[in-house]
Amino acid sequence: MTKVTAQMSVSLDGFYTGPRDTRGPEDMSGWMRGPEAPGFFRVTRWAVDAMAWRERQGFAGGEQSINSEIIKETFAAAGAYVMGRRMFDAGEVPWGEEPPFRAPVFVVTHRPRGVLERQGGTSFTFVTEGVERAVELARDAAGGKDVAVSGGGELLRQVLTAGLLDQLELHIAPVLLGDGQRLFDPSLGLGADDGIELVPTRVVEAPDATHVRYTVTGRSKLVLDDRGASGDLVGPAQPVH
Amino acid sequence: MTKVTAQMSVSLDGFYTGPRDTRGPEDMSGWMRGPEAPGFFRVTRWAVDAMAWRERQGFAGGEQSINSEIIKETFAAAGAYVMGRRMFDAGEVPWGEEPPFRAPVFVVTHRPRGVLERQGGTSFTFVTEGVERAVELARDAAGGKDVAVSGGGELLRQVLTAGLLDQLELHIAPVLLGDGQRLFDPSLGLGADDGIELVPTRVVEAPDATHVRYTVTGRSKLVLDDRGASGDLVGPAQPVH
Repeated sequence: MTKVTAQMSVSLDGFYTGPRDTRGPEDMSGWMRGPEAPGFFRVTRWAVDAMAWRERQGFAGGEQSINSEIIKETFAAAGAYVMGRRMFDAGEVPWGEEPPFRAPVFVVTHRPRGVLERQGGTSFTFVTEGVERAVELARDAAGGKDVAVSGGGELLRQVLTAGLLDQLELHIAPVLLGDGQRLFDPSLGLGADDGIELVPTRVVEAPDATHVRYTVTGRSKLVLDDRGASGDLVGPAQPVH
Repeated sequence: MTKVTAQMSVSLDGFYTGPRDTRGPEDMSGWMRGPEAPGFFRVTRWAVDAMAWRERQGFAGGEQSINSEIIKETFAAAGAYVMGRRMFDAGEVPWGEEPPFRAPVFVVTHRPRGVLERQGGTSFTFVTEGVERAVELARDAAGGKDVAVSGGGELLRQVLTAGLLDQLELHIAPVLLGDGQRLFDPSLGLGADDGIELVPTRVVEAPDATHVRYTVTGRSKLVLDDRGASGDLVGPAQPVH
């Protein structure tokens, strides 16, 4: 059965890149010198070192490691992708004639554009009818495999808040960045009594990232349940944890 | 050798409690109805259910589980504690005559106050000379065991940015809260080129929390190292991770 999945590399404090570069995606050589790049390269380093990632990009070398296995598995599970417009803009030129996806990609955008066919099985279809429609089209194109939300963070949050995400995997890099673009932020629109519940289904330890996979259960009310610890619920009995 | 350790329960999006209750710590029955409580009880639920936590609080019941083992181990490793003033204020009454620490606690505060001796080995010493001094006093009192930073988040960040923290363990509850008080925030004072590096040393999977322990390596510069992926470093070649 097709699942809608997402995976993302984040710092231990929840950033997937440095602070937003407001100059836009036009000047990519400038991007490398901007505020986003140092954090971005730090949190994705585990992937860039891995053989399976490099192979998809057409680069030589890399490590045959548990990280490489995870990337291989992630690519293999995806039958189609959904992507944000800003990510597509940043990737279009560097990905070149043979992008690493090798599957249909549906780009959520406000600007209509014809389908781009690339070598190796990748196509880019531009969807102007919103996130739900892009996921629906990707589901039809996935051939029974998964629909992978490939980012960025804003699209991932939209898919999550629309209740469309079935599985989330975070690759947690052991670094604190302090500031940057957060994968999760108040745009999730949750009140103080609301949470989105998940169930951890797999944890993989590697020296340079902790890979945690969750099934998304969905939105639910948080309850004031202290398991009877404080008797008449007068205050926080919890001392250390 | 005495290490300075900290451990904290957080949501997957990095909150250790709901949005700040600005009414202050005086009205604890109001706190239960305020914005902090639902998030706080959700992220600490794994601990409150555990037998070892309940035993320390003088409550019956609880589960003999891997979570309980972790709490037992955490209590056993600590020879002294350092605590923030706000956490002490919130805990003083509910902890009662026999607080769960059973060791000397050093409270960082601006208000001088005499030492409070409690039953079971707990004492509260109020330190007005800052975080470094409180850690120093706790180190002397720890008898070769660890100094545990018991929270809250603000104190933990101060100890971390002062370069005093040796080990951090996060208990990551599988829930997104969307908003609340973050364990890590820009008050870490890191620029876009700076990170605090850590090394994961242990991961323990449990259904209701993922326990990840890190050794804190310390502050270092982030480098623009894409492992040669983009050749002339023109842009982000990284597509999916």
